[in-house]
Amino acid sequence: MILRDPVHGLVSFESDEDAIVEALLGARELQRLRHIRQLGLTSLVYPGADHTRFAHAVGAAFVMTRFASRLRQEHGALPFWQRLTSEHAREGVAAALLHDIGHGPFSHLFEEAFPDGPRHEAWTERILLDPATEVNQILCRVDPTLPTRVSELVHGRHRLTYLARTVSGTFDVDRCDYLLRDAHFTGVSYGRFDLDWLIRSLRLGAANEEAAPPLAIDGTRGMPAIESFILARFFMFQQVYFHKASRASEWMLRSIMTRVRQLLLDGARLPALPRGIEDLARRGDTSLDEYLKLDDARMWTALAGLCEVTDEPLRDLCQRLCQRRLFKTIELYGPHGGKEARERAREQVEDIARERGLAPELYVGLDVTRLAAFDERDTSLSVALPGGKSESPAHVSFLLRRLAGESLEQVRLIVAPELREAAREALRL
Amino acid sequence: MILRDPVHGLVSFESDEDAIVEALLGARELQRLRHIRQLGLTSLVYPGADHTRFAHAVGAAFVMTRFASRLRQEHGALPFWQRLTSEHAREGVAAALLHDIGHGPFSHLFEEAFPDGPRHEAWTERILLDPATEVNQILCRVDPTLPTRVSELVHGRHRLTYLARTVSGTFDVDRCDYLLRDAHFTGVSYGRFDLDWLIRSLRLGAANEEAAPPLAIDGTRGMPAIESFILARFFMFQQVYFHKASRASEWMLRSIMTRVRQLLLDGARLPALPRGIEDLARRGDTSLDEYLKLDDARMWTALAGLCEVTDEPLRDLCQRLCQRRLFKTIELYGPHGGKEARERAREQVEDIARERGLAPELYVGLDVTRLAAFDERDTSLSVALPGGKSESPAHVSFLLRRLAGESLEQVRLIVAPELREAAREALRL
Amino acid sequence: MILRDPVHGLVSFESDEDAIVEALLGARELQRLRHIRQLGLTSLVYPGADHTRFAHAVGAAFVMTRFASRLRQEHGALPFWQRLTSEHAREGVAAALLHDIGHGPFSHLFEEAFPDGPRHEAWTERILLDPATEVNQILCRVDPTLPTRVSELVHGRHRLTYLARTVSGTFDVDRCDYLLRDAHFTGVSYGRFDLDWLIRSLRLGAANEEAAPPLAIDGTRGMPAIESFILARFFMFQQVYFHKASRASEWMLRSIMTRVRQLLLDGARLPALPRGIEDLARRGDTSLDEYLKLDDARMWTALAGLCEVTDEPLRDLCQRLCQRRLFKTIELYGPHGGKEARERAREQVEDIARERGLAPELYVGLDVTRLAAFDERDTSLSVALPGGKSESPAHVSFLLRRLAGESLEQVRLIVAPELREAAREALRL
Amino acid sequence: MILRDPVHGLVSFESDEDAIVEALLGARELQRLRHIRQLGLTSLVYPGADHTRFAHAVGAAFVMTRFASRLRQEHGALPFWQRLTSEHAREGVAAALLHDIGHGPFSHLFEEAFPDGPRHEAWTERILLDPATEVNQILCRVDPTLPTRVSELVHGRHRLTYLARTVSGTFDVDRCDYLLRDAHFTGVSYGRFDLDWLIRSLRLGAANEEAAPPLAIDGTRGMPAIESFILARFFMFQQVYFHKASRASEWMLRSIMTRVRQLLLDGARLPALPRGIEDLARRGDTSLDEYLKLDDARMWTALAGLCEVTDEPLRDLCQRLCQRRLFKTIELYGPHGGKEARERAREQVEDIARERGLAPELYVGLDVTRLAAFDERDTSLSVALPGGKSESPAHVSFLLRRLAGESLEQVRLIVAPELREAAREALRL
Repeated sequence: MILRDPVHGLVSFESDEDAIVEALLGARELQRLRHIRQLGLTSLVYPGADHTRFAHAVGAAFVMTRFASRLRQEHGALPFWQRLTSEHAREGVAAALLHDIGHGPFSHLFEEAFPDGPRHEAWTERILLDPATEVNQILCRVDPTLPTRVSELVHGRHRLTYLARTVSGTFDVDRCDYLLRDAHFTGVSYGRFDLDWLIRSLRLGAANEEAAPPLAIDGTRGMPAIESFILARFFMFQQVYFHKASRASEWMLRSIMTRVRQLLLDGARLPALPRGIEDLARRGDTSLDEYLKLDDARMWTALAGLCEVTDEPLRDLCQRLCQRRLFKTIELYGPHGGKEARERAREQVEDIARERGLAPELYVGLDVTRLAAFDERDTSLSVALPGGKSESPAHVSFLLRRLAGESLEQVRLIVAPELREAAREALRL
Repeated sequence: MILRDPVHGLVSFESDEDAIVEALLGARELQRLRHIRQLGLTSLVYPGADHTRFAHAVGAAFVMTRFASRLRQEHGALPFWQRLTSEHAREGVAAALLHDIGHGPFSHLFEEAFPDGPRHEAWTERILLDPATEVNQILCRVDPTLPTRVSELVHGRHRLTYLARTVSGTFDVDRCDYLLRDAHFTGVSYGRFDLDWLIRSLRLGAANEEAAPPLAIDGTRGMPAIESFILARFFMFQQVYFHKASRASEWMLRSIMTRVRQLLLDGARLPALPRGIEDLARRGDTSLDEYLKLDDARMWTALAGLCEVTDEPLRDLCQRLCQRRLFKTIELYGPHGGKEARERAREQVEDIARERGLAPELYVGLDVTRLAAFDERDTSLSVALPGGKSESPAHVSFLLRRLAGESLEQVRLIVAPELREAAREALRL
Repeated sequence: MILRDPVHGLVSFESDEDAIVEALLGARELQRLRHIRQLGLTSLVYPGADHTRFAHAVGAAFVMTRFASRLRQEHGALPFWQRLTSEHAREGVAAALLHDIGHGPFSHLFEEAFPDGPRHEAWTERILLDPATEVNQILCRVDPTLPTRVSELVHGRHRLTYLARTVSGTFDVDRCDYLLRDAHFTGVSYGRFDLDWLIRSLRLGAANEEAAPPLAIDGTRGMPAIESFILARFFMFQQVYFHKASRASEWMLRSIMTRVRQLLLDGARLPALPRGIEDLARRGDTSLDEYLKLDDARMWTALAGLCEVTDEPLRDLCQRLCQRRLFKTIELYGPHGGKEARERAREQVEDIARERGLAPELYVGLDVTRLAAFDERDTSLSVALPGGKSESPAHVSFLLRRLAGESLEQVRLIVAPELREAAREALRL
Repeated sequence: MILRDPVHGLVSFESDEDAIVEALLGARELQRLRHIRQLGLTSLVYPGADHTRFAHAVGAAFVMTRFASRLRQEHGALPFWQRLTSEHAREGVAAALLHDIGHGPFSHLFEEAFPDGPRHEAWTERILLDPATEVNQILCRVDPTLPTRVSELVHGRHRLTYLARTVSGTFDVDRCDYLLRDAHFTGVSYGRFDLDWLIRSLRLGAANEEAAPPLAIDGTRGMPAIESFILARFFMFQQVYFHKASRASEWMLRSIMTRVRQLLLDGARLPALPRGIEDLARRGDTSLDEYLKLDDARMWTALAGLCEVTDEPLRDLCQRLCQRRLFKTIELYGPHGGKEARERAREQVEDIARERGLAPELYVGLDVTRLAAFDERDTSLSVALPGGKSESPAHVSFLLRRLAGESLEQVRLIVAPELREAAREALRL
């Protein structure tokens, strides 16, 4: 099986162990990801960012095949029970392909809109383990224990520590793919890093008889590559994932769902709404079958339908989002962003909204994002030094040492545009 | 106004005459293009190809601003009534932005599915001229004659011949953007060409008092750039636009619409279907309002709904498409593809379908694509030679001379996979 | 061994059979290539084109390792005596690395300046076979027959036809590297093609018991890649290798050497001249030892020295070249370029030079370049079609069929700038 | 005038004020830069890095034209005597083109080899001001005060502060070009940054009646671009400019020159040596005429000649360098690199060299490199915030704040390879 991918170029799955990819790609649950954009509403801001979870899943699986062949150049030094067998490689590539299968419409956004519903990880587990899904059936056909094993690995648990860390860790195949992919599709060049060199610099860390070694990077060659990988992630969060207009549109979606919930609990009927959304709004959960019917297309169709409901705030919010009349943000810098100051600011602006007849819980939001540049306690990747020693990246790298443990916090009020001037004045910003 | 675009990098609209772009981007009819993929069903084959008509429209408008500043470096030699005034530049950029505003869901595909309905050009004209649209209102606010003038220009008619050809011609801003964009998002590198060099090589052809000059390219510097532009287009058709699996999925959509029409005419009710589709299927047209509600999201939602209808063929076709179980193609090479031979072949395979209980008009298609590498009679671009002479590109270029007038025809049968073996045998292929 | 290369990215030689590369890179004769620019005087025209034969040699060797691993995915179907053993792979990579080792200063230019001297192929053979060279000694250390075998392979002779064609053929590792490299360093984007896809499309042609199969390309997947490879070559010739200012500077170097020869044969002494040049000018050959001392640095130093000789024409020509006051070209289009017409034109302009006291054989040149877009009789690459058949590329490809057998001929007079006006007038151009 | 450049693509100089570029490119002193590699001996390590000072000079001039047109979009707000007139723009582009004209062979290396000789800045000034140079004559032809004004500007002095900072400052046209260029030619991707976005983000800082404003960057849009620019510089130093093998080869050249000086002062004759080198070695200076004859080609020719002298150490060092048998490095980490410890280490290894009969001052070096990631006291670039305020980059940027004032120091011993083992043992490393 061979594909063209704008990020990785020629993508092929040709070994015996990769045959699972072609089989799984035919599954209904995976095809569904074709209709879920990787970056939720971000294409409202970066008009190229319409790429889907499907393309990302294939990309992550491909990166896994590259990790696996690299690790096999190194695993000869391990006792045979710690080596990356064909069976383990198959688990790895399946986990990479399926790691995000549980995502709902608009990806992460969906969870934020339904904070009480199951997380996407829980949905992933349901999809993997429910015998009614095609994914489960395809995995079982290879080996009845495979669904459970893949599910464990997706959550970062595996006897081969290094394999677990390729699926879930500081430098995992998920990040490798999404940073490059999101950079390619948004056009934000800061998200690029040198994947070839990084893979070439992969090592196995210090092992012992009992435990398989962790993932490591060659300290002599790999440091600048890993530094620029960490920085790429930092830049992508700053520029894309935490972009003010993205956050504002995400808040709008959340307000819409809040209003939907309010109305449903009041007994209203909203025929435009898919059953799954109704369930989630009413009782915080839905059936797997209904969940799998949800995707971006259904949601946009529903939102278009809700543009015509009689409830004034719901109609208004939906129309604004569909016509991209986005809420605005007010940055609360320095002391203005402190824990008490920001709550006070929110209350002040909520009062303004109330005065103008806008429901404050729908039209005023407080958005706090926090980005750890590099977590110094993170042990998922170590640096292999000459002479067999291992160190943490923060110890070895001049750059990472200065960023370790530091967090960038951004505090913003999100408000309907007509409130911004008054809010600024009231807050004297 | 400044944007990041993965194709052109930094995209800005900052001159007075470009202000129209920002105003138009707020129009509902333009925002709708966010939900129409540029390449219809092609992302079923190239998983990155989820880019939208919206991003293309912005890109084309940006290329127009570059054309305009280049042409203004040259227009000083013209009599003033032939120069590119601010007003004309505004018409140009508006036309570039709006040239595809009439596209239906899945872009060109939609027209093929409703061969009797209005073409997208007709919808574009309706949108531009109907006083109820936001696009019309925004244009009118600038100048009440602007909608008509933009509509004329979109169709390639303008007193300034060279301006008309930048909107519609061999080397127009539409092609400049879509070739690069489709290449970027599919990952098919053959679609790249040197836009900077091409724009730098733009000239105005020979003028006279009566008629404004046509568009031309500098024969000394621009030839390899224009040659590789023509070849890029050729490669993109071969590799992407006429890709066998794209064509097969397009045929499936057409079969679905054929069946929908049959059922509706028989009096069936299909509640999953949007009103606009129903109208088009029943009477070959619909209202502008209903048309504008149609987009890819609505269509995918409708197709998902149709996966549960009772009509066997319709349900089957929709399920196949939604789960990407695509029809297969059989190439009819050489004499097998001749006019009579291919009809005979179709009939043979239709018989096979019939024997197996599959409606031949839905499950067997004959697909003929024809690509003119370079039309020698095309006068939309001339080559400016030293000494003031002009020639046709085919005259000047070694490569184009050999391709001029040559067409690549591909003839394929498109069949449900279960028919392929029998079809091959019957046709002795 | 692992390197960063701007063209191929991460370049590594890590298998046992590639160890020969690291050993050979230490050889004096290979290090000498660091001082020979790949494109002679082309950086006078494209200021980035200062890349060396050394970088190209490494690049070609790397491409060979990629060809070899691809061919080994395919060679399992062959009888074992036709497979690509480690020994053969070593021959291949050594031949790729050493294929140009005999080049003199300014690469191909040097041969044109000394048309009676040995060709670079002859020097390559001497270097490989002379027991005094380090290259010979390193090869012999592995196997005393290796120098001869590598020399045979460099000249395209090998029992394994497909291996021979990777070193010398339409689609060989030399071209694969130099097209991409020259494109990268000149900035001429038309020279790019899709190497990954091409390598992935490599096949072994039809074999039989007696003869190893030729090299082939997968006709289903590889055609657009091979077409764009052929076109890339065509564009690079047009844009770079046959660029008028390159050709003019090359002519100047040839004139300098002509004058040097004249002077030496007249008994003059030219101390600035390296011994090897003196030998070549006097008697058409020199010792290997002296030849190996020649490189671009020596030549530029010599040219700087010759800027101060007393002989007027020699001094003048050297000063012009060192200060980049290049000769100009006059294109002889159409009938003006016919065999008789061009000779007449040359004579006319030589008369003009003579009148002005400029030696015509130094100051007036007739330059005829001829580029076969694609040689239809070329059998070095065939196309593997489904069902085991093979065809020639021109048979299968719409584009190549139209280019096969066609040649682009360019005829130019090269003259000192002060002659151009008069020449144009005399020729009525 | 229009050129193809692999870094900037299409490079053109077409305005009246840019005409000076074409005139200056014909000057002998500028053509000389064609034979001086931008990165000295770095191509011994990165085989693509053969690009020259000439290409860099053209690139820097081109970036200046882009800076100038951007600044002119902004300078309307200034009093007219602070605006960027045509005359000032001409000074700017000339200064950008000529800023490095005084470099000797191997660029910075040459200064390190002759620590007592004039710096390249001094040579630049001589070349600009000496009426015998073509550069001076060309500048004078435009305006007799131009040589002085360009010389002042090259050294960062100009009444228009912002113009001065484009030539010499944190974010100047020199760095903009060399970082991208060195990245392109070495293949080290970490050196890339987003030049388009940076130029678009240029602002003029706060001005007053007396002083022209400094250069600034838009704090809302430009921060990530400037951060990644600073980081690109950091990575290039780490990966390329301070690469251990580069530093080792540079040390070797310095040892060669040390030995040359010793021999000359002892009265030896070294006929292979160019006059300029002899002068510099003997008396620390030479004439401009002799200096201008020096370039990389002369030096390599001289080094080849010196491979045959009778003096053992000089011959040995030259042979090693010409055949790329480079010295090795021993990193002195942490406390081992402290001021006293490293001197002790050097002495220990010098003793080892002495025991083996190798002159310690030639065969053992102590190399200390120090890289300030970002100088917080640097005022050459400020950040323009909304509301007209300005801040230092370190104040505004999360990343730069953590790097400001921090230096990365690397301490290495550089030794002949045969000393490394013994040295490691003696130092217990």
